[in-house]
Amino acid sequence: MSALRFPDLPPSGPQGSELLAQERATTTFSVHELSNYVYGEEFLERQEKLLALIENEPAFDKSNRYFLGRTERFAGALRKEHALVKLSQEQGWGPEEFQHADILIDESGPFGLHRSMFMPTLVSQGTAEQHEKFLMPALRYEIIGCYAQTEIGHGSNVQGIETTATYIPETNEFEMHTPYLTACKWWIGGLGKAANHAVVMARLVTAGKDYGPHAFVVPIRSMQDHTLLPGVMAGDIGPKFGFNTTDNGCMWFDHYRVPHISLLAKYSSVKAGTGEYVKPPNDKLSYGTMVLVRASLVGLARLGLAKAVTIATRYSAVRRQFVDKDSPKMMGKQVIETPDYAPNVTWEGDNYMITQQTGRYLCKSFRDLVAKRASGKFNASSITNPTLAYLNTYLDNPDLKCPATSPAQFHNPEIQLAAYGHRAAHLVAEIVRALDVEKRSWNSMLVEIYNASVAHCQLILVQNFILGIRGDMPQPEGVVTPALSPALKVALTDLSDLFALHQIHKQPGEFLTSGYLDAKQVAMIGKAVMDVMEHNIRPNAVGLVDAFAFSDYYLNSALGRFDGKVYEAYTEMATREPINQTEVVEGYEKYIRPFTNPHGKQGKTIQARL
Amino acid sequence: MSALRFPDLPPSGPQGSELLAQERATTTFSVHELSNYVYGEEFLERQEKLLALIENEPAFDKSNRYFLGRTERFAGALRKEHALVKLSQEQGWGPEEFQHADILIDESGPFGLHRSMFMPTLVSQGTAEQHEKFLMPALRYEIIGCYAQTEIGHGSNVQGIETTATYIPETNEFEMHTPYLTACKWWIGGLGKAANHAVVMARLVTAGKDYGPHAFVVPIRSMQDHTLLPGVMAGDIGPKFGFNTTDNGCMWFDHYRVPHISLLAKYSSVKAGTGEYVKPPNDKLSYGTMVLVRASLVGLARLGLAKAVTIATRYSAVRRQFVDKDSPKMMGKQVIETPDYAPNVTWEGDNYMITQQTGRYLCKSFRDLVAKRASGKFNASSITNPTLAYLNTYLDNPDLKCPATSPAQFHNPEIQLAAYGHRAAHLVAEIVRALDVEKRSWNSMLVEIYNASVAHCQLILVQNFILGIRGDMPQPEGVVTPALSPALKVALTDLSDLFALHQIHKQPGEFLTSGYLDAKQVAMIGKAVMDVMEHNIRPNAVGLVDAFAFSDYYLNSALGRFDGKVYEAYTEMATREPINQTEVVEGYEKYIRPFTNPHGKQGKTIQARL
Repeated sequence: MSALRFPDLPPSGPQGSELLAQERATTTFSVHELSNYVYGEEFLERQEKLLALIENEPAFDKSNRYFLGRTERFAGALRKEHALVKLSQEQGWGPEEFQHADILIDESGPFGLHRSMFMPTLVSQGTAEQHEKFLMPALRYEIIGCYAQTEIGHGSNVQGIETTATYIPETNEFEMHTPYLTACKWWIGGLGKAANHAVVMARLVTAGKDYGPHAFVVPIRSMQDHTLLPGVMAGDIGPKFGFNTTDNGCMWFDHYRVPHISLLAKYSSVKAGTGEYVKPPNDKLSYGTMVLVRASLVGLARLGLAKAVTIATRYSAVRRQFVDKDSPKMMGKQVIETPDYAPNVTWEGDNYMITQQTGRYLCKSFRDLVAKRASGKFNASSITNPTLAYLNTYLDNPDLKCPATSPAQFHNPEIQLAAYGHRAAHLVAEIVRALDVEKRSWNSMLVEIYNASVAHCQLILVQNFILGIRGDMPQPEGVVTPALSPALKVALTDLSDLFALHQIHKQPGEFLTSGYLDAKQVAMIGKAVMDVMEHNIRPNAVGLVDAFAFSDYYLNSALGRFDGKVYEAYTEMATREPINQTEVVEGYEKYIRPFTNPHGKQGKTIQARL
Repeated sequence: MSALRFPDLPPSGPQGSELLAQERATTTFSVHELSNYVYGEEFLERQEKLLALIENEPAFDKSNRYFLGRTERFAGALRKEHALVKLSQEQGWGPEEFQHADILIDESGPFGLHRSMFMPTLVSQGTAEQHEKFLMPALRYEIIGCYAQTEIGHGSNVQGIETTATYIPETNEFEMHTPYLTACKWWIGGLGKAANHAVVMARLVTAGKDYGPHAFVVPIRSMQDHTLLPGVMAGDIGPKFGFNTTDNGCMWFDHYRVPHISLLAKYSSVKAGTGEYVKPPNDKLSYGTMVLVRASLVGLARLGLAKAVTIATRYSAVRRQFVDKDSPKMMGKQVIETPDYAPNVTWEGDNYMITQQTGRYLCKSFRDLVAKRASGKFNASSITNPTLAYLNTYLDNPDLKCPATSPAQFHNPEIQLAAYGHRAAHLVAEIVRALDVEKRSWNSMLVEIYNASVAHCQLILVQNFILGIRGDMPQPEGVVTPALSPALKVALTDLSDLFALHQIHKQPGEFLTSGYLDAKQVAMIGKAVMDVMEHNIRPNAVGLVDAFAFSDYYLNSALGRFDGKVYEAYTEMATREPINQTEVVEGYEKYIRPFTNPHGKQGKTIQARL
C-alpha cells in the first residue's frame, strides 16, 4: 500500500465534469455523426468489441507504464506480445482486428517488425517455394522475424551498405560477412532478443561481381533453445529516446553460410551451381517494404496529433488558472507531451532527407511541363495529374496577385488553393532556375528543396480537406462516403479554413515572396483566423475532439480524461509511484541521516529546536 | 560480462579521428583564445581541477545513466548528492566551485532546490533571527529544504494559491491548512523524499483578513528519523518527462501548527499576540526567488544549446553517408536530442505565458513615448533606455524602407539592427492600436503579444552580439573584457551575421509586413546566409564548438566525442545494456518458446527444416 494518500476533498471552483458538460452542450453538430464519418460504423463497433476484450486483461494494463525502467518494460512488452497473439488465435482475428487491437494497446513490442516488415517482405519478394518455407511458419509465429537493412554506418543510404553475401558455387550457399565495424546491422527492431530469423539486406557478390543490396532470409537463433547460431552475433542496441519496449538490435556475421534458398528470388536470383545473376525487371522493387512503412508513419502521425489535441483541448476546458479581466471565459494554455512519438520523425531515414525525393519529382515535373509548353503542341487538358495542375497555372501567370480585399473573402477555397499553389510553384521555379541557370549544386539547395517539398505537401493537404468536405475526393472502388449533414459540413468547413489560413498567417514569408499575397492581405488573414477560432471553432472544440472516439484506456492520460476529473486522476497516479511505497526513502540512513542527524540522538527534533 | 561483443574491425573509409583532424586544421582562429574570451582563464583552470576530482569518482559516473529505471536513478542521485556535499566540505569549496562541479556532473538531484531556491529565499526574506535558526543549519545540510509554491490547481498564477496559514493568537502559531484538492502542493523539487523543511507559500490570514501569499518555513519530516510530522502528508509526484532524478513532490496539511517564527518576516510580519499585519514596502518583493531561478534558466538554455551544437557538428564531420555528385565535401545531417532539457521550457511558469510581462512593458513604454512626443517638450536624448530607442526611431518614420540593394550590404550591422528594431516596434504599435483603438481584449491578443515579445528579445540578442564583438557591451565594474585578435573578431562577426540574417530568412513574415524589407531583399538575405555558411562558418565549425571546452565526461555522448571515435563508442555502449547480459532473453521460455518450439523436440532446428 502506498505511503502517500490525498485528502478526501474536491477541487475548488467548478468541477471538471461540469466544465466539460458545458462545453459539450455548445457543440453545433452531432459528435456521433462525425465519428461515423471519420471511421465508419464497422470500425467503431469493432473498437467497442476489442476494448471489451483487452482493457481489463492484465497483460495489456497501462497503469504502470510510466513507472517502469527499460528492463521491466521490455519484459512486459514480451508478455503483451505473447498474450496478443494467443488472443488473436483464440478469437480468429484477421489482420484488421489484430492491427486495431495493437493500436489500442499502443505499445511497441518485439514482434512488431515481424508483422510490419518481415512478413510483408516475404510476401512481396519471395517465390512460392519461399512462401511455403518461411511465410507459412511466420504466420504461425514459429518463425519470428525482423528486417535487417540499416547498418551503423549507413542509415538512409541503402546503396552504401557493406554487409556482403557471397555465392559459393561449390556448396550452393551464400556466405554472409561483416567486413567493417560500420557494416554492423543496427537499429533493427525485434532483432535484439526476440527474432529467430532476419531479412538481411546485403551486397550480393557472385562470380566476382558486386550486384549491390539484395534481401536474404537468414536464420539467426536456434529453433531449439534460442541461442545464437554459430557465425552470428546479435544483441540489443540499448535504450532509445522513445520506443524502449522494442528490442532494436545489432548483428554481425563471421563468414556465416546460408543455403541458396535464402536469397528472396521473386525478382532477381542466382542460378544454382553456375552463380549466374538474373536481373530484376525494375531495380527499385526491392525497396517496397520501406516505402510501405513510410506510408504507415503518416497514419501514426494522425493518431499522435489527435491524441495530443484531445488531451490539450479537454485539459484546457478544465484548467482554470487566471481570470482575464477583459474576457473571463478563455481557455487556459499548456504543453502536452506525446512521452513515445519522437522516433517517428527519424526512422526509415530522417524525414528531412526524404523530402529530397519529392523535390526531385517536382523539379522533373516542372522541367517537363516547361518543355511541353515550349513544344507548341501543348494543351492544358493534357495534364492528367491534378496535384501538378498548379504548376501550369503558375506558368500561365507567374505574377498573379490575390484579388481578396477583406478577411471574409479568404474563406473562399479557390483563393486558399491559389495561394498555396502559387507559393509551391514559385519555390519549385526558383529551385529549377538555381540548378539549371545558376548551376548551383543539388546539395547547396537542400534547404530550398525541403521548403518546396513542404509547400507541395501542404497544398495537397489543403486541397484534400476541401475536396473531402465537398464529397469530391476520389475513393477506392466500392467505398461510399456518407453525405454530411449541413451542420457537420459547416463545422468541418470551419476547420478547413483554420487549417489553410493559420498556416499562411503563421509563416507568411513564402506566400509574400511568391508575390501572390501582400502584407495587408496577410493581416486580413490574421483577422480571419482569429474570427473563425473565436466564433466557430471554440464552441465546438470539445465536441470535435470527442469525435475522435478515443477511450480513456487508449489515451492513458490523467489530463485528457473524458470526465474531466483531472486532479483526482493525477493525484491517484502519484500514489502508485514506486518510491512512494515506503514513507522514508531507502537511501535515508546512508545519504541523508549523516548530515541531518549524525549522532542519532534522541530528542534532537526540529520541534525541540524551534 | 556482456553476451554481446563486436568484431575487432575498424570502421570503413576515413576514420573519425582523421576527419576531425582535417576539420581542426582549417580553423582560422585560436580555439584557446575563444575559450578564454568566453569563460576566462580562471574558469578553465578551475574546470580542469574539478574534472580531475570528479570524473573518476564512482558516485559521479555517467556511463549507466541511460540504462536505469527511475527508482535506480533516484537512488543514484541521492548517493551523488551525498558524495558531492562531502567532497565540497573536504575541499572547502565556495558556491562557485560547488555550482561548477554540479554542472559538470550534470544530473538534477534531490538537494538541488535546497541550494537554488530554499536557501536563497531564507537569505532574501528572512530576518537575522531566522538566518540563525534556519539558514545556518541549512548551510551545513542539517536542514534540507525545498520551495513549496506551486499547487496542483495553480502553477503560474501565484495569487490564486489556496493553502492557508491562519494566525492563532492564543498560542502564537500559524495553522497551515489545505482546503481543497486543488490546493495540494505539487511539482516541488526535493519535497518528495529528501527534504525535512519547506518554504511554503500560503495565504496569510490574520484577524479574519486574507493578506494573500506569504512565505513560511515549515518543518515537514522528523529530524530524528525522517518520518512525516503529524499533520503533514507528502510524497513524490511520479515520473516526469525529464528530470527524474529529482523527487518532485506533493504535500498537503491537515490543520498543521507551526510557530510564529515560521513566517519569513524581513518585509512583512504579524505582530505576536495581536495578529496585527505589518505591510511590506513593495508587494513584489516576495517573488524574488522565482525571478532569480527564471534568470538562471537562460544560462541552462545556453549550455543545452552548446552541447547540442557540439554533438551535431562533430558527428556531422564524422558521419559520411551519401556522396554528393556535385559537391562531395558537404557535412551530413542528423537529429540530436538533449534526453533532460525539456522541463526548462515549462517550469517556473510556462515560458509562453511569461512573455506577457515583456509585452506589458513594451506597450507601456510605447504609450509613454507617444505621450511624451505629443507633449511638445520631448527631445530624443531624454531616452535613457537604449533597448527602447528603437521605438522612437520607428515613431520618427513608421514607413522607413531598407536601403540595401545587394546581399553584401546585409552584413552591415546597422542595417541588421534597423530591420529588427523596425519589426519589433511595428508589432508593438499594432498591439497598442488593437488594444486602445479597436478595444480588443488583452487575452484575445496573446498570440500577437507573444510575437512582439519574441521580436524584442531577438533584437536585444542581435544588438548584444554586435556590441560584444565591438567591445562596447557595458560590463559590471571591475570586469575587463580581453581585446579580440583580428582573426577571432572576423570569426565571431561571421557568427553574428549568421545569427541576425538566418532568423530573418527563416521567418521573414514580420519583417515584410512591417514594411522595412521587401521580398527581393529577403531573397538577397538568403544568399548572404548561404554565403557566410559555406565560405566562413563551415571551415570553422569544429573549431567553434571545440571552444566550448566541453570534456567528453561532461558531454557523455558517443556521437559527440572529441576524438571522433563514434562507432567504437556507440557499439561499446550497447554491450553494457542490461538485457544484453544474458544471451537468451529472460522471457523466452514463457513467451517465445510456446510459439517457436512448443514441444521442445530435439533436432527440430531451422537447419533441419532448410
